[in-house]
Amino acid sequence: MGENEDIKKIVNEENNDIKLVDLATELLGYEDEEIEKICKDLDDKSLAIVLEQAETKIQLKIISFIDNSRILKLFGLMSKDDIADVLGSINTGRRKQIINIMKEGDKAIIKQLLGYKDDSAGGIMTTEYIALNKRLTISQAIDKIKEITPKTEYIQTIYVTNENRKIIGTVDLRDILISNANQKLEDIVNENFIYVTPEVDQEEVAQIVSKYDLSAIPVLNSRKRMLGIITIDDIVDVLVEEQTEDILKMGGVAKEETLDSTLLDSIKMRLPWLLINLVTAFLAALTVKMFEGTIAKVVALSATMSIVTGMGGNAGTQTVSIIIRNLAMGKVKFKDVKHLILKEVLLGVINGAAIGVVTGLVVMAIYKNMYLGLIIFLAMVGNLIISGFFGLIIPIILEKLNIDPALSSSIFLTTATDVLGFFLFLSLASIFLPKLMI
Amino acid sequence: MGENEDIKKIVNEENNDIKLVDLATELLGYEDEEIEKICKDLDDKSLAIVLEQAETKIQLKIISFIDNSRILKLFGLMSKDDIADVLGSINTGRRKQIINIMKEGDKAIIKQLLGYKDDSAGGIMTTEYIALNKRLTISQAIDKIKEITPKTEYIQTIYVTNENRKIIGTVDLRDILISNANQKLEDIVNENFIYVTPEVDQEEVAQIVSKYDLSAIPVLNSRKRMLGIITIDDIVDVLVEEQTEDILKMGGVAKEETLDSTLLDSIKMRLPWLLINLVTAFLAALTVKMFEGTIAKVVALSATMSIVTGMGGNAGTQTVSIIIRNLAMGKVKFKDVKHLILKEVLLGVINGAAIGVVTGLVVMAIYKNMYLGLIIFLAMVGNLIISGFFGLIIPIILEKLNIDPALSSSIFLTTATDVLGFFLFLSLASIFLPKLMI
Repeated sequence: MGENEDIKKIVNEENNDIKLVDLATELLGYEDEEIEKICKDLDDKSLAIVLEQAETKIQLKIISFIDNSRILKLFGLMSKDDIADVLGSINTGRRKQIINIMKEGDKAIIKQLLGYKDDSAGGIMTTEYIALNKRLTISQAIDKIKEITPKTEYIQTIYVTNENRKIIGTVDLRDILISNANQKLEDIVNENFIYVTPEVDQEEVAQIVSKYDLSAIPVLNSRKRMLGIITIDDIVDVLVEEQTEDILKMGGVAKEETLDSTLLDSIKMRLPWLLINLVTAFLAALTVKMFEGTIAKVVALSATMSIVTGMGGNAGTQTVSIIIRNLAMGKVKFKDVKHLILKEVLLGVINGAAIGVVTGLVVMAIYKNMYLGLIIFLAMVGNLIISGFFGLIIPIILEKLNIDPALSSSIFLTTATDVLGFFLFLSLASIFLPKLMI
Repeated sequence: MGENEDIKKIVNEENNDIKLVDLATELLGYEDEEIEKICKDLDDKSLAIVLEQAETKIQLKIISFIDNSRILKLFGLMSKDDIADVLGSINTGRRKQIINIMKEGDKAIIKQLLGYKDDSAGGIMTTEYIALNKRLTISQAIDKIKEITPKTEYIQTIYVTNENRKIIGTVDLRDILISNANQKLEDIVNENFIYVTPEVDQEEVAQIVSKYDLSAIPVLNSRKRMLGIITIDDIVDVLVEEQTEDILKMGGVAKEETLDSTLLDSIKMRLPWLLINLVTAFLAALTVKMFEGTIAKVVALSATMSIVTGMGGNAGTQTVSIIIRNLAMGKVKFKDVKHLILKEVLLGVINGAAIGVVTGLVVMAIYKNMYLGLIIFLAMVGNLIISGFFGLIIPIILEKLNIDPALSSSIFLTTATDVLGFFLFLSLASIFLPKLMI
C-alpha cells in the first residue's frame, strides 16, 4: 500500500515540481482552511502546478479561494488543455467571467477546446506545438524552435506545413539537430504520419499511439489544418482513467465513485445497479418457482441446483472478460466470430464435462442416487455451453449496439446462466422424477 | 470493432514504419510459409521493425526462419531492451548461440538485461540514453548529443554525471538549446529527480511516471550509477498489459490467454479456476443441505433463497472492484480502513434495506405470507452488510499477504456471501418455521 521504498526521490529545493505534485495529491486529505492558506502562501508558479495536478474536487476548491485576476495569472503558466479542463468543471457563471477577461487569442482557443467532448481527441489535445513552414532552412528552423520552446509543451516532433497551412509531414527534432544548416525542412520531412480528427474517442487515440509507438499524434480538421496535438503523457492519463473505468464498470460501480465519495453519493451510484440486478434475481427465482412441485418431492434439488447456475456464471465470466478486453483493444474481427463461437461451445462441452463429472460423482456419493448425479452432469455440460455461447455473443452484440459491453455484459450473462441453468437442471429433474424419488 | 475511419494514415512510401507496424500485427493471421517469404523479401531495417513490433509468438517464428548472422544484423538496428525481449523468449540453446557471437560490449549489456525479471524496472529499461559529464560546456554537450543521437532512443532529457559517474541531475534538451554556449551543464542542471532501482515492479514504475508526468525515469543501482532508463512509451505498453491482466484476472482467466489460444491451452488455463470455484459452490450447497428439513416443509424457500445470495454477490463485487482499483493506484491508506469499513457497513444497511423492502414486498405478494417477506428483508440487510465488510477487507488482506487481490478476491467473496447468505436466510426461516407453514 502506498509507495514502494525502492522509488527514490532526490529533492533539494523547497518548492520544486516533485514536491508540488505530492502536495496536489495530499490536498485531498486537507481541510478547506488549510487549502485556502496554501493558496495564499504559494507563489503563482507553484500554485499553477498544484492546480494542474490536483483532482477536480480540489481544483474547484482552489478556484473558489482565489480571485479572477490571480486565476488569469495561473492560466498564463499552464497549458491550454489543462486550462480547458479546469474551466470545464467550474460553474457556468464563473467560467464566463474568466473567459471574458482573457486575451482574445486565448479566448478563441479555450472556447474551441471547451466545445469538444471531454473524452474525445479534441477534448484532450493541447494547442502548444511547433509547426513550421516547409521552406524554412534548418538554421532558420532552429532559431524559431529556440524562440518557441519556452512556451510550448512538446518539441520532439516539428510539424511541417505548406503555404496553405496544411500539414504535409513531420520532422524529428533529432533530425534537425544533425542536418546541414542550409537544407530546407521540406528536404528532410517525413511525409508518412498518422492523425486523428477531433471527434475520435480518447480510448481509440490511446490504442493508436500505443500501437505505433508515437510520442504525439496530431489532430487535424477535415481540411487537414492542425487543431492541436495529443502527447503521450496525456495518453498515459487516458489509459489510467480508462482502466479505472473498465474495472469499476465491470463491477457495477459508476466510474465517478472514489474512496472519498460520501455515503449518499455511493448509495446513489450503487443502488440503481443493484435494483437492475434484482430483476435478474427475480427472473431466476420465478424459474425455480415453476418447479416447486418437483422440489417438494426431491428436496435434494434445492441444495444442488445452485452449483449448476454458479458454475455457469463463473465460466461465462471467463468468456466475457476475454472478449471485452479484446473488443477494447480492437482485436475482435467479425470474420472470426463464427470460429470463436465454435471454440467457446467446445470449451463449454469439455470444461462442463470435467466439472460435471466431479460434481456428479460427489452428489451421487452424498445423496446415494445415481440419477441425481447424472442429471447434474448433463445440466452442467448444458449450462457451460450456454455460458460460453452467451459470454461470447453478449459483449459483441452490445458493442454493435453501441452499448458499453464492460458495463452491461454481466447482467445479461447472469440472466442467461441463472434462468437457463435452473430451467435445464430442474426440467431434467422433472423428467427423471420417478428415478429420483426412489 | 477494428479501427475507426476517423483515424487517418497518410502513407506515401512502400516500407515505412506505419505499414511495417501494421504488417507485424497482421502476421498473426498468416501461414508459416507466408511469414517465411516475408522474412526473405524484407530488407534488414524493415524486418527489424517487424520483429520489434510483433507478438512473441510471431517473433519466435521469424527467428526460426532466419540464421544467426542475419539476427545479429537485425539486432544492430534494434534497441537493447527489445533485443533482450526477443532473446528472453527463445529457447536457451539458440539464445546462447546468438549471445556468443555478439560483440563483447553488447553481450554484457544483454546478459545484464536478461538477468532482471520481465516485469521489473530492470526488465523493461533500455540502455540507450545520453549521460554527459557536468563539466562539459553547452556547445560541447551539443556536439556530443549530435554524435550520440542517431544511436539512441531518447534525447529529451540528458543525464548529468560527476567524475565518479554518479548521476547528479538532469537537463532538458530544450534548456540546452536556449542556453549560452559557454555555460557548463552543471550551471543548468536540475538536481531534483526521481529514480527507481531495477527491482521495482513495472506497475509501480508506471504509477510514478504517470503521477509526476515524466517522459522517462532513470534506473539506478545502489551506488547511484545509471543502469538505464524507462521511457514513457514503454510505460504505455506496461499500462496496456497490466489493464489486460487485471481484467482477465478479475474474470478468472490467465493473463496469457488470447483469442488465438488453442482449445487445449484455453482448457488448461480456465479449468483449474473453475475447479477452485467448484469448492465454493459445494460449500454453499452443503450449507443449504443442512436446512433440507426446513425447505421440505416450506418449498417456497428454495426459489427465494438465491435472491439473497445473488444480491450479496453483486453488492460485494461493487465494493471489491472499487477497493482493488484503489489499491492498485496506491490510494488505500491504512489509517482510513476503519472509516472505510464503517462506510461499507452503513452502505450495506441502507442498500440492503432498500433492496430488502422491494424483495420482501414482492415475495409477500407472491406467496401471500408476511413472515416470508420479513425474513427475506432481514436476510437481505444482513447479507449486504456481510458483502460490504468482506468486499472491503478481503482485497486489503490479500494485498497485505502479497497475494494478488485482482485474482483471488472474487472467490473468497463468493464463499462469504453464498455460505453466510444461505445460512442467514435459512436460519431465520427455521426460527420462523411455524409462521411460514401457516
